[in-house]
Amino acid sequence: MGELASLFAPERVAVVGASDDEGSVGRAVTENLLADFDGEVVAVNPTRDEVLGLSCYDDVTEPADVDLAVVVVPASIALEVIEQAGEAGVDDVVVITAGFGESGSEGAAREERLRELAAEYDLNLVGPNSLGVMNTTVGLNATFGPENAQAGSLSFMSQSGAFITAVVDWANDRNLGFKDIVSVGNKAVLDESDFVAEWGDDPDTDVILGYLEDVVDGRVFLETAREVTAETPMVVVKSGRTEAGASAAASHTGAIAGSERAYEAALEQAGVLRVDTVQELFDSASILAGQPVPESDGVAIVTNAGGPGVMTTDAVGDAGLSLASFTDETLDRFAESLPAEANRYNPVDIIGDAPVERFTEALDGVLADPGVGASVVVACPTATLSFEALAETVVDLQAEYGKPVAVALMGGSSTRAASERLSEAGIPTYFDPARAVRSLDALREYREIRERETVGPRSFDVDREQAREILQRATDRGSNKLGVEAMDLLDAYGIPTPAGEIVSGRREAVAAAERVGGGDDVVMKVVSPDILHKSDIGGVAVGVAPEEVADTYEDLVTRARNYQPDATLVGVQVQELRDTDSGVETIVGVNRDPGFGPLVLFGLGGIFVEILEDATVRIAPVSQPQADAMIDEIDAAPLLRGARGRDPVDEAAVTEVIERLSQLVMDFPAIVELDVNPLVATPEGATAVDLRLTINQEKL
Amino acid sequence: MGELASLFAPERVAVVGASDDEGSVGRAVTENLLADFDGEVVAVNPTRDEVLGLSCYDDVTEPADVDLAVVVVPASIALEVIEQAGEAGVDDVVVITAGFGESGSEGAAREERLRELAAEYDLNLVGPNSLGVMNTTVGLNATFGPENAQAGSLSFMSQSGAFITAVVDWANDRNLGFKDIVSVGNKAVLDESDFVAEWGDDPDTDVILGYLEDVVDGRVFLETAREVTAETPMVVVKSGRTEAGASAAASHTGAIAGSERAYEAALEQAGVLRVDTVQELFDSASILAGQPVPESDGVAIVTNAGGPGVMTTDAVGDAGLSLASFTDETLDRFAESLPAEANRYNPVDIIGDAPVERFTEALDGVLADPGVGASVVVACPTATLSFEALAETVVDLQAEYGKPVAVALMGGSSTRAASERLSEAGIPTYFDPARAVRSLDALREYREIRERETVGPRSFDVDREQAREILQRATDRGSNKLGVEAMDLLDAYGIPTPAGEIVSGRREAVAAAERVGGGDDVVMKVVSPDILHKSDIGGVAVGVAPEEVADTYEDLVTRARNYQPDATLVGVQVQELRDTDSGVETIVGVNRDPGFGPLVLFGLGGIFVEILEDATVRIAPVSQPQADAMIDEIDAAPLLRGARGRDPVDEAAVTEVIERLSQLVMDFPAIVELDVNPLVATPEGATAVDLRLTINQEKL
Repeated sequence: MGELASLFAPERVAVVGASDDEGSVGRAVTENLLADFDGEVVAVNPTRDEVLGLSCYDDVTEPADVDLAVVVVPASIALEVIEQAGEAGVDDVVVITAGFGESGSEGAAREERLRELAAEYDLNLVGPNSLGVMNTTVGLNATFGPENAQAGSLSFMSQSGAFITAVVDWANDRNLGFKDIVSVGNKAVLDESDFVAEWGDDPDTDVILGYLEDVVDGRVFLETAREVTAETPMVVVKSGRTEAGASAAASHTGAIAGSERAYEAALEQAGVLRVDTVQELFDSASILAGQPVPESDGVAIVTNAGGPGVMTTDAVGDAGLSLASFTDETLDRFAESLPAEANRYNPVDIIGDAPVERFTEALDGVLADPGVGASVVVACPTATLSFEALAETVVDLQAEYGKPVAVALMGGSSTRAASERLSEAGIPTYFDPARAVRSLDALREYREIRERETVGPRSFDVDREQAREILQRATDRGSNKLGVEAMDLLDAYGIPTPAGEIVSGRREAVAAAERVGGGDDVVMKVVSPDILHKSDIGGVAVGVAPEEVADTYEDLVTRARNYQPDATLVGVQVQELRDTDSGVETIVGVNRDPGFGPLVLFGLGGIFVEILEDATVRIAPVSQPQADAMIDEIDAAPLLRGARGRDPVDEAAVTEVIERLSQLVMDFPAIVELDVNPLVATPEGATAVDLRLTINQEKL
Repeated sequence: MGELASLFAPERVAVVGASDDEGSVGRAVTENLLADFDGEVVAVNPTRDEVLGLSCYDDVTEPADVDLAVVVVPASIALEVIEQAGEAGVDDVVVITAGFGESGSEGAAREERLRELAAEYDLNLVGPNSLGVMNTTVGLNATFGPENAQAGSLSFMSQSGAFITAVVDWANDRNLGFKDIVSVGNKAVLDESDFVAEWGDDPDTDVILGYLEDVVDGRVFLETAREVTAETPMVVVKSGRTEAGASAAASHTGAIAGSERAYEAALEQAGVLRVDTVQELFDSASILAGQPVPESDGVAIVTNAGGPGVMTTDAVGDAGLSLASFTDETLDRFAESLPAEANRYNPVDIIGDAPVERFTEALDGVLADPGVGASVVVACPTATLSFEALAETVVDLQAEYGKPVAVALMGGSSTRAASERLSEAGIPTYFDPARAVRSLDALREYREIRERETVGPRSFDVDREQAREILQRATDRGSNKLGVEAMDLLDAYGIPTPAGEIVSGRREAVAAAERVGGGDDVVMKVVSPDILHKSDIGGVAVGVAPEEVADTYEDLVTRARNYQPDATLVGVQVQELRDTDSGVETIVGVNRDPGFGPLVLFGLGGIFVEILEDATVRIAPVSQPQADAMIDEIDAAPLLRGARGRDPVDEAAVTEVIERLSQLVMDFPAIVELDVNPLVATPEGATAVDLRLTINQEKL
């Protein structure tokens, strides 16, 4: 167990601000602690002699050996109390008191001071503005919620206290149990990453659940969660996904509307199962806590009802699962043991008159089949079937084969006892077979996360000094926007570019064309930090013959001047003409998220990223398997892979550019944004043809 | 009420095959009928004197005035019984007996004969292989299911009997009631369209629900449902959506794997709310039965919990709804009436200490706001809130304002009484606020369906005779595949094509180029029914100068011969060269679905349809608003609308081509498939540049 073990399982808890006033938070916390806690509770309240049978101390320094102080005093004296706790050697503090960062500038200052105190005394501090914490191992309920949680193996953190009370009330009704629960409040000191790390080290936590509106430190969270999810599944609702939701979150907890795209990429890279609704959160959590992950994606359906069998099959098709094919042995067995009217193929339909014995035979048969990774049992009420008996046989067979099973009991009150028996054994049940299948799909997703190979980013041999000089040069010119004139930045990082020179006169242009083109046609482009869409103003000429170079130079300059008289004109680039007929234009872009740092984007050029939004994003640094996956993820990937009779492009060259740009942006925090557009991919390689970047000179 | 009124509400029902054998279907049906039926039940069984207290008749002709005969005899004598029923003047027959079309060739022959008998005696016949029918108005339970349904306003048809028993068991537990229920069985006579028509005419049916694996007559279903859904909402699970699901459905009910694309288009055009899961089926049905449709899309959220408020807001963002903006009046009112810490903007957060009075105030305020179309109330359990009192105030305010309300009661057993009170008043409740929002979204969807203007297809003045001759000519040549040589088919239907001629010699080519090009460059293409991808073999030359026409002719012919020596070469097409730089290539395609007939497809040419599958489909005939909607639906639509600095194309010209092709394919059943690819759309119009079609000569 980790550093926060004593926070969740203290021996002696002081309620600072204990009270017996009806309806007060101080009373609710004291009562909750007195109800089930295995350790000792002491009350601190200088204005009382006794609270709920406990004699009161005047302040938190008086009682000895307090591990955890729960602070429920008014905000005005909370800091003083926390300082006293620090002085008294208390390690863990839960600040339930509100009136900090969530409430105006005075509160913000108070929260800043609280942070300083926590650092000074090395406090593990939860909150402020928290509902509190719970731990079912020692019966700790240091919250002011109306109910204590039941024991179980889920540990749950929430950026909403009300959500905890709702979930506990609901979960108690469903025999769903928790290990630890924490209301993280304003996250002034301890934040989500601390709890993820703690529960990752906790053998009694099988699944980590979270309701988050933001993440305090994106990079720390990503690294912590990535490590933890290799062993412990984690399911999170990150709300504020939509524009309206993000602004509601900002008003609720002051969550900064970080880019949804960054959160999406980060949670994916961290191996977190992200879900959108409360129902999915608990459907996923229940099965992850109760069932093993399947070894393969093949699902066997066993049902006494044809129609629901078809619906279940559709749900398998919707999920990342597949319908298992049975071995001949299984089919022969079923030919013997099942009635002639039954369907022995998957979905196995043992028909309406099936007694429990037939379910046992069919489920035993499919679970024994090596091609079956998991099974869904779908049962409709009939005169011949006892749901209770079905529950028993499912529990036994699941335990015997160790393969995950989910159950759809398609009825009302008649299913209740069976459903309870199954949930006790960790087997989830639903009315809707689609939910049963989706829960199995969560197991599959988690298996894939667990099987991920963790490969660090490759480190390429680059000329970092050269790159620094190029960026410095731009800074010296006082410009923070660069274009093709910075192409040698890419050269320095080993990214292929066409030969090219920037010229500022007719004759120079002709000479440059001779050098880069060697007598062949060239490409000429206006170079100006102020003209972003060169093509749109006719600022690009492709296939310029040697004799046309001089006139084209004049043309381009005139166009640029007409278009924007005050634009700074760096010159005209004369570039080698590559045969791009067999090439596909792609885009690799980089920008910085306030929470997660540099993001790398990949997609196809032109309309694909800009209009169809067919792009994919990763938090940098990007490893080789991640870069490969980025190509896989775009819808237009077939265009890189030989669609429409073309030769497939050199994908490895594209991924290498993605990785090298990732290295560049990690090396230079000064690069705020960078777009290689287009990066032309051909069967022979990938060439960066154009470049735009924005630099933050102060970070150089 | 419609023709089937007496089927669902007979006065005298005969059970043919009545029995008191424990566990027999004959007993189950008789018991179910005796339980609640307002009318009279008679038993028919020549081997018994009495069954369950009823004296037995020897055959169905004996008792007088039987309206409905329920047939549960063995398959071998079922036809005889049905014939007797016909003879006796019985109008309605429910055939529960199995062993017909679903079981081999003997069964199929039996079903064919059953169909003939039904026609001969004009029987309204349900089944065979049906669970039976229910009607709660007269207490009719003519099924062998274990439970009778509760009364309500949903009418439900299912192609799975087991699904009915499951749903009834589950619904009874939730006080969800039905009007009629029918297990359609093999649909030998009455099918889904008959029940849709019946319930469309039934004032006591508020919502029509269906579980379907296929549709017997696609066109009839589409027309019937379109008419009915203008007044009565219809929610359907059509299973077999996925490949695996379709083959499971084929094995379950012999449903033919009609194209999923056709079903999707047809259900959409028919105004059916299609859902994928049982949960969505009943979530949608409940709110449609209980709540009015909202007049606008603005949703107001009222909650005592910030986090759940944010999740609810995200769910609104995911749906086709929007977060309502409040008027100044509402905001001023809330500034007065709500505590300072509350959020009076949407989502309205009345904070954790809210008593029911604050919920009343907030809900009253938002429902009074003209910008609010619907409201979601999200309540977490707190010490200050009584869920029961909340239920009362929600029921009152919903009734007062007549705007739809959905409720998330975020707790366990503490919510039960409140939840029951709300469902009694037709207000659905869920734990998960996302489900509450999705149910409101179903209301919005239905409002849009109800508001749809029904516009018939335009009828263009075309030269149908000319078109027939062109198709006939092809037939005479013995070819069923046509290409550009049939471009005049498009001319006959008023679809613009470039000027062009098909030639079969060098000199002819030169002369044709002079005529169509008038001295300008032309396009030349190989014409052969056997060469489908002309471009891929270099069979198309664009921008051929007059002096190059003769040589190009030879070139193209040589290429075609080399590529496929045995190909029939119709000639070479010499076509006017249009400036397509400002044009966008689109595709309009037509094919025939076995169930729904001609489908029209629209998308952008090249990779868009072929690789990105960015296409949309309608069942023909296509009206003008439908054709407009087709353009709206494709992801690439911005490319037609001036993206990337281009002029927008003439969309009206594109939609007119879609409509004219729809008319063509409706006029000629002989056209099996037809692709105009590309149809080049420019700011000035739309021109069909190439064509392929397949004809079925027998249908000409």
